[in-house]
Amino acid sequence: MPPPSPPKLKRTLYTGTFVSTPTPSSLEVLEDYAIAVDEEGVLSERVQIDLSEEGSERDLEKWVKKNWDGWEWVDGGMGVGKGKGKGKGRGRWWFPGFVDTHIHASQYLNVGIFGKTTLLDWLNTYTFPLESSLSSLTKARRVYSACVSRTLSHGTTTASYYATKHVASTNLLADICLEKGQRAFIGRVCMDNDLNPDHLRDESPEQAVQDTKATIAHIDSVDPSHALVTPIITPRFVPSCSSSLLSGLGALAKETDLPIQTHLSENTNEIALVRRLFPSHDSYSHVYDTHGLLTPKTVLAHCVHLSPEERTLLKKRGSSVSHCPVSNTSISSGLCPVRQLLDDGIDVGLGTDVSGGYSASILVAAREAAMVSRTLAAVAPEAPPLSGAGSEVLPEHSTNARDRKKLSVEECLHLATRGGAKCLGLEGKVGGFEVGMQWDAQLVALDDADGGDGDGPGGVGDEGPVELWGEETWGDKVAKWMFCGDDRCTKRVFVRGRLVHERR
Amino acid sequence: MPPPSPPKLKRTLYTGTFVSTPTPSSLEVLEDYAIAVDEEGVLSERVQIDLSEEGSERDLEKWVKKNWDGWEWVDGGMGVGKGKGKGKGRGRWWFPGFVDTHIHASQYLNVGIFGKTTLLDWLNTYTFPLESSLSSLTKARRVYSACVSRTLSHGTTTASYYATKHVASTNLLADICLEKGQRAFIGRVCMDNDLNPDHLRDESPEQAVQDTKATIAHIDSVDPSHALVTPIITPRFVPSCSSSLLSGLGALAKETDLPIQTHLSENTNEIALVRRLFPSHDSYSHVYDTHGLLTPKTVLAHCVHLSPEERTLLKKRGSSVSHCPVSNTSISSGLCPVRQLLDDGIDVGLGTDVSGGYSASILVAAREAAMVSRTLAAVAPEAPPLSGAGSEVLPEHSTNARDRKKLSVEECLHLATRGGAKCLGLEGKVGGFEVGMQWDAQLVALDDADGGDGDGPGGVGDEGPVELWGEETWGDKVAKWMFCGDDRCTKRVFVRGRLVHERR
Repeated sequence: MPPPSPPKLKRTLYTGTFVSTPTPSSLEVLEDYAIAVDEEGVLSERVQIDLSEEGSERDLEKWVKKNWDGWEWVDGGMGVGKGKGKGKGRGRWWFPGFVDTHIHASQYLNVGIFGKTTLLDWLNTYTFPLESSLSSLTKARRVYSACVSRTLSHGTTTASYYATKHVASTNLLADICLEKGQRAFIGRVCMDNDLNPDHLRDESPEQAVQDTKATIAHIDSVDPSHALVTPIITPRFVPSCSSSLLSGLGALAKETDLPIQTHLSENTNEIALVRRLFPSHDSYSHVYDTHGLLTPKTVLAHCVHLSPEERTLLKKRGSSVSHCPVSNTSISSGLCPVRQLLDDGIDVGLGTDVSGGYSASILVAAREAAMVSRTLAAVAPEAPPLSGAGSEVLPEHSTNARDRKKLSVEECLHLATRGGAKCLGLEGKVGGFEVGMQWDAQLVALDDADGGDGDGPGGVGDEGPVELWGEETWGDKVAKWMFCGDDRCTKRVFVRGRLVHERR
Repeated sequence: MPPPSPPKLKRTLYTGTFVSTPTPSSLEVLEDYAIAVDEEGVLSERVQIDLSEEGSERDLEKWVKKNWDGWEWVDGGMGVGKGKGKGKGRGRWWFPGFVDTHIHASQYLNVGIFGKTTLLDWLNTYTFPLESSLSSLTKARRVYSACVSRTLSHGTTTASYYATKHVASTNLLADICLEKGQRAFIGRVCMDNDLNPDHLRDESPEQAVQDTKATIAHIDSVDPSHALVTPIITPRFVPSCSSSLLSGLGALAKETDLPIQTHLSENTNEIALVRRLFPSHDSYSHVYDTHGLLTPKTVLAHCVHLSPEERTLLKKRGSSVSHCPVSNTSISSGLCPVRQLLDDGIDVGLGTDVSGGYSASILVAAREAAMVSRTLAAVAPEAPPLSGAGSEVLPEHSTNARDRKKLSVEECLHLATRGGAKCLGLEGKVGGFEVGMQWDAQLVALDDADGGDGDGPGGVGDEGPVELWGEETWGDKVAKWMFCGDDRCTKRVFVRGRLVHERR
């Protein structure tokens, strides 16, 4: 039975400061703005608030009453009228919800446990045994509920999930996302060759396609318009799949026009294995391409070791990359050259890759994307970009080749929101605050070290991980959030206008 | 006027599970133990608790009453009698307090703000202006109070601080550490050459030494036995110091037998600058050595790019290294080859290096030490170890040269506790739970995802960042803490038997 539909929304006015990254290298800060969201969760209007006399909370209330009578009102804490702009409001802002383009919900229980493994032994040691156990619906319910709640608490409003091969528990994941209100792509994981353990191996390519269709049918029944939850075709990765299975899934993608997700070029041993399994193919990417799996709707996780030819192929097909920096470092996969991918004009989003990655937070993924890019600047030799690729991703303050590799705070947060949205076909729908987009947003609040008036204790309570001192620019505040913040800073989360997480 | 002495301690019994790392590659877990701490904060006895019948909380109470009548009792949550070992106790343990071997208290306000800079432009852009402003005692009090409170909340029981050149505010930092009860080394920063900005430049080498003596005298007056706070001689780094100043500080170290802290080989531009400033010296390390600054009490931050000759010199002098992985990655300094240093027999501890590092947490430093070592395994070529160096740091599960570079969870936590203690001359005094050591400890608590009984909601509240599922080994729990935990997991912190932080 499908879960009950969410209650009809009330049209709501959101006020405060709205911060987002309209382009990769820009931070837009709209102070003292109001955004109106209609009954469908869509942004219908965006206006600057102009309080004629010096602002105060009371004046704002009057302004709302006068101009938006009959609307619900949620204030994100404006910077006006509270201690001369130094009050609580100066550390609070609305930010677009995060998009996690690659997360294995089925591995959530294992976060933080990976030892010294690399990809292939990590799969056998930690991952396959856990995934096998998710044939139990009881266990699946516990793990998936916790995963969805946790990612919502981190501000993830959209997640592209891998479940397992088990249809019933995969369908349960879709139900849980609908119930908790998270926008999600749900992948039933396909893996049919002899390299897979018995309990996780699909009986045949046909059965794997059949089971994928079963999940698609389930999602079509519980969310017919895919307003919130969408099926995504999910071959685990080339080393797990027969050629027949890959072909079958490619055909299914063509037939259904659904998105595809898989892994690509994560680890050098994996790449060598693909070469042994498909010796007649030019490259790992080429295997997917010849099976019809590189489409403009394909999201490829990792892409750490792509050759120039593979990058050209990805660009040509319009497929996108999910960059998973925490995972890549944790299991020693390598350093993904994100600047190079962006220079090539390939779309990039961020993934937590739980549990290769130890954190379910896209804020942490953004932080580590910055860190990995700085490591690349420190250690790696320069490689030439593909010719004719877009130059709009060049930040103005780049001075040389090494510095260019570094991703700025704005770029990392752009990858975490609009970048990921574009990968998942949600461009123009989520990731920003333009009229016509959906209200997928989080209210961020950094606590003041001293109440903002300079004479407080300067101490630490249970408030949160970030202190403001009254001297920070907006850029500084956002940087402090990205590097020092955590889920304590995410006070409220909305998806399509619905409140889906609140931190008391 | 010196701050009032702390109240006399009551002899106290601590019960629960005690986890520590007696050697770099071992995790010792003492379940159902009791540790007695005397009025001086020293561990006087350590016994296993043997409850004859099946344990229960009530039995433990009886046992304590019978065997330790008249003692204060602090229970860390034993694993007995609560839901058949699955209760709250299974996610709680005592752990040695963390040792931060390198932190600039004066830069605390700037955590998270560093843009795309590297060392030398980072100093000029962010750091020197901030440090200049700490001539104000009002500002210094705010920043230092917040820094000490924050690091205590992260479980840092010992910190080796850089203040600034200003004597009064440096002395204030010592007072604040005494008042809040943190074990600390306090360094008045010396920097006299023309490369320093006007407001931070010592008037002369003599004045710098004189001012250092003034801070030593102050600390001698407020903590005559250096029971908690110790002065540490602190030349900023070679590029900031004249040869006369380095000689003067070397002589002062010899005269006073005090420890020394400084920076070494952090960044390739810095190394090139040292070569220009001291062209007749063999190396950066050699400059310190010829000025009498490489002693067994010297802690050298970073050491990312040491030559084999420099490593040999450090080993010969018995000087130690503060590894600051967050900082090294943040400002693109490079990847410190910690395994190589350990193989060479050089002592290594961890530093947060606030604010080159964006986090004041040694737990985060331990996590990033693991991450940096995994990046090294993925990208860097192999270098031979020095001959004849210790092999006891070889973890048993190392299989090849690449894997050997990886630091295990136990190794990272050993660096964070005993490793740092040894660097600072506190070996055998803090960092573990042996009789005769001081009670510098933290109570760690991970929250259960579902109350531990498998039928809970599996959801997320405000409890904490880590979930346990009832299937974890002790090694798994500690790994989850290191990779997913934060200050929310540190419930109580003690230094020398005194409660210095409590999270409600």
